[in-house]
Amino acid sequence: MKNPSKQSTSYYAFPHSKVSLKNSCLGLFNDNKRQLAAKPRVPSRARALQQHGIEETAAECQRLGATVHTFVVDCSKREEIYRAAEKVKKEIGDISILVNNAGVITPADLLSTQDHQIEQTFAVNILAHFWTTKAFLPTMMKNNHGHIVTVSSAAGHMPASFMLSYCSSKFAAVGFHKALTQELSALGKDGIKTTCLCPIFINTGFVKNPKMRLTPILEPDMVAKKLLEGILINQKMIFVPSSLNIFLFMEKILPERALAAWNKLQAIQFDKVVGYRNKE
Amino acid sequence: MKNPSKQSTSYYAFPHSKVSLKNSCLGLFNDNKRQLAAKPRVPSRARALQQHGIEETAAECQRLGATVHTFVVDCSKREEIYRAAEKVKKEIGDISILVNNAGVITPADLLSTQDHQIEQTFAVNILAHFWTTKAFLPTMMKNNHGHIVTVSSAAGHMPASFMLSYCSSKFAAVGFHKALTQELSALGKDGIKTTCLCPIFINTGFVKNPKMRLTPILEPDMVAKKLLEGILINQKMIFVPSSLNIFLFMEKILPERALAAWNKLQAIQFDKVVGYRNKE
Repeated sequence: MKNPSKQSTSYYAFPHSKVSLKNSCLGLFNDNKRQLAAKPRVPSRARALQQHGIEETAAECQRLGATVHTFVVDCSKREEIYRAAEKVKKEIGDISILVNNAGVITPADLLSTQDHQIEQTFAVNILAHFWTTKAFLPTMMKNNHGHIVTVSSAAGHMPASFMLSYCSSKFAAVGFHKALTQELSALGKDGIKTTCLCPIFINTGFVKNPKMRLTPILEPDMVAKKLLEGILINQKMIFVPSSLNIFLFMEKILPERALAAWNKLQAIQFDKVVGYRNKE
Repeated sequence: MKNPSKQSTSYYAFPHSKVSLKNSCLGLFNDNKRQLAAKPRVPSRARALQQHGIEETAAECQRLGATVHTFVVDCSKREEIYRAAEKVKKEIGDISILVNNAGVITPADLLSTQDHQIEQTFAVNILAHFWTTKAFLPTMMKNNHGHIVTVSSAAGHMPASFMLSYCSSKFAAVGFHKALTQELSALGKDGIKTTCLCPIFINTGFVKNPKMRLTPILEPDMVAKKLLEGILINQKMIFVPSSLNIFLFMEKILPERALAAWNKLQAIQFDKVVGYRNKE
């Protein structure tokens, strides 16, 4: 550890977006790892960040005794991300944990998904991870200290219909996490940790009326708790629920027909546009 | 089969690019499935397409008795792809097999990779797949007949250092293929087949001086042969070499340390820029 002062205070950056890109925002708050471990209420901050506006989240975090800084950023725009990152560094200082949480989705079949929606999905769900990481990684490299969290999805491992660009971008996020982990190791930067979060549907309104026959829809609090626990123990890949891991193992050994039967049984559903059928 | 004439003649589109984006090109040639199965020389067409310019490939295919049409397209530009696809439909007609083969790479660590290189990697390696598929899928849907081939990479399953954006975009291509396969099934379009090709390094000059300790570098002819065999039997996922499949299975059961040891043993190498080390 080149800079021991980094041990006492850590800054967390949560780039986050709602479904609307114009509401994309980057919330930053300050805490230390001991507090993080000791306070079970901390997860509710992440929950609030997803459910309500950034200002409400900030107020909630402040009530919990944390110092909070908020920045509203359109995560689909590289230059906006870089400008916000510079502002963060100038006004606050280095950050220790970067949580790339921004995500958008277009629930529709491929031919009903518009080109600009596909481009925005990739801009927010994966390219933004590159820009935030490029902005904050140099200092982490210098100190050999930090943690980069990639929020992907169960859809980054298991495909689902009517969200093709979302699935593809979340596969990209899993690849980003895995390749980054390996590159940091090749460069001898063992002080910079990485974590990838892959949950199934969360009850946040991200898609309308999600339903799965065999797995309940997750509550945000539970997912945030799993993520923070994972960060504290440097867990590389967090599946929520953890039974997803078993399915991914089965995927390697089961024949295609059995997997197709499983998908039919699971019956993933949500409100979507299926233009092809409508035109039939 | 709504249009039986589709059975006698098939058109193949091979969007392809060299490392330089300006040399990106789309070659199209015409053959039928029986010929494809009967002619062992067909794979050499795909090989030539990768190794030399489009005109040389066209001449070679013509010598083999095929009708060939060539179109030069910058696969990083959506509008150029759409314009070329319209020209193809107008001048030639519908196509049966679309092979999304274009790909670019920047062999460098993340901080040495420039932003425009990351954006181009995603534009060519994954977004172009969306535009070509959106262009040719409507007719395939109408006829419930066709085949969409996604050329990904071993790097779309197993991460490697110093090619972060390449890995991430190739993971995205695997996700694209899997989600497209599932969506076509959900829409009842069982006449449209899908195949994903995932080879390790191929001796085409794509990266300079590739070396792997445990696996030999592949020859283009062999990969093209595996792909065409896979298309003929509607194989969903083609690993070259097929032993990759075993590694991916092991990845699910081995602990992280064992995987790290395997990566060290495999010792993947190629000429690259590692700016971070140079600055140390």
